[in-house]
Amino acid sequence: MNSVAIVGVGLIGSSFGLALREYGFAGQIVGVSSAAALEAAKKLGAIDGSASLREAAGSADLIYLAQPVDRILITIEKLPGLVRSGALVTDAGSTKAAIVRQAQRCLAGIAFIGGHPIAGKEQRGAEASEAQLFNGKPYVLTPQGPSTALTDSFRWWLEKIGARVVEMQPEEHDATVALTSHLPQVLSTSLALTLARQSNPNAAEIFGTGLLDMTRLALSSPDLWTSILATNKPAVLAAIEAYSASLADLRRSLESDTVVELFEVGASWAKRIREQHRT
Amino acid sequence: MNSVAIVGVGLIGSSFGLALREYGFAGQIVGVSSAAALEAAKKLGAIDGSASLREAAGSADLIYLAQPVDRILITIEKLPGLVRSGALVTDAGSTKAAIVRQAQRCLAGIAFIGGHPIAGKEQRGAEASEAQLFNGKPYVLTPQGPSTALTDSFRWWLEKIGARVVEMQPEEHDATVALTSHLPQVLSTSLALTLARQSNPNAAEIFGTGLLDMTRLALSSPDLWTSILATNKPAVLAAIEAYSASLADLRRSLESDTVVELFEVGASWAKRIREQHRT
Repeated sequence: MNSVAIVGVGLIGSSFGLALREYGFAGQIVGVSSAAALEAAKKLGAIDGSASLREAAGSADLIYLAQPVDRILITIEKLPGLVRSGALVTDAGSTKAAIVRQAQRCLAGIAFIGGHPIAGKEQRGAEASEAQLFNGKPYVLTPQGPSTALTDSFRWWLEKIGARVVEMQPEEHDATVALTSHLPQVLSTSLALTLARQSNPNAAEIFGTGLLDMTRLALSSPDLWTSILATNKPAVLAAIEAYSASLADLRRSLESDTVVELFEVGASWAKRIREQHRT
Repeated sequence: MNSVAIVGVGLIGSSFGLALREYGFAGQIVGVSSAAALEAAKKLGAIDGSASLREAAGSADLIYLAQPVDRILITIEKLPGLVRSGALVTDAGSTKAAIVRQAQRCLAGIAFIGGHPIAGKEQRGAEASEAQLFNGKPYVLTPQGPSTALTDSFRWWLEKIGARVVEMQPEEHDATVALTSHLPQVLSTSLALTLARQSNPNAAEIFGTGLLDMTRLALSSPDLWTSILATNKPAVLAAIEAYSASLADLRRSLESDTVVELFEVGASWAKRIREQHRT
């Protein structure tokens, strides 16, 4: 893997470029993005230069699609005829089944491996990027065929930049992030929406850090989330259904004063993922 | 106000003692609590010494009840006959209507003002206390009668330690914190409970900081929360109902792909409380 084209040099794309450099990648890194994003990414040293999709895809060993999900789906449609023979295409989109299906449909004869770095951040854009963004974080890969020299090399670089590579089926990934990422997002937005709809004037005054924590995700950009939720609808709806059942149980427990056990189950799971997160 | 008895020297009680000292209170501060809590609070300088409830209530100008809600209700029952004439009793409990009712029922001829510092923290106990805990935070008071020299003096000290005093009716307070504190708690616990009940083994592996934020409140101590929720049940149930309606709207919007507007309403409210929090 001697040259990389990063399509979309926002938070994830620019962080991938910075991480490759930080951990010793000596080849060329070219960005494909808007003029403003390219300028920011170049200034930070995340990319060496910029190119059109045609130029970049025609020369790179690795084509790294780091756009929002809906944009990745469109870029994949454009790639046939542009990618040079023997190159590997990968993506960093937040859902995998729709993207992998699109790649299977469009990229006949072009090597593709789906990916998802579990390394979000409140801020967006190249300005927020950092070389350590992937370090210690899970990075899901969803290979649909045997490994090759180029997928092995890509995976080697992911591990080099500190990511914990986990292989999964696309549907397995989507069902998991529906629970651990999309559900929390939906709940946070629903909470902010609930409070926005209240006529109680004190609700925006009398609150502590708990409410701030619980509404942080509600700040997320709708344009990113629309395509994430749209491409994972059945799993997200199932997660909301499971959640509604738990909320109903907890609600009932308030009326019967048997709330302690449910709090303890929740607390123990919340502790468990924190221990997992530290290791 | 020349002497203070703090009943319950955990996070809030010890922080109140530390804050009084830090901001120049020169009178005596006595703690009433378990032996272990008293030792920790004394070591930190939050109290000068310890006493029984009888001794402390019999000599202090201000009796500050900083226990969990259920314990405050019990302490109030014990106070008649113990409080010296002219003293003021106040509390720092998380719900107000039940406590104010209990005070009206039990404390005939004893001055009482309900209070609630909106200044929580993940950690509990004197060890986590800090003199700046109340600084810049709302402190709700629920006076049921005209102010007196002693309520004015107490209020003056609250402002001196940096709190933003807000007066409200107990029911108004409880309806507000049902939305801004109790609802977030219930949602966080329900989320952790939902995930604990999943058979998906990846759910405890593939997650980011969003899930950690959204399950932080789920770590809260059930024994604190049982009495908070039990003394504010109608308002909490109403808040859960309002939330369920918003969640159902958001769920429907996923199916009709009109999710963006709801995300924007949520995001704008989440931004608004952050601006409020900074001022």
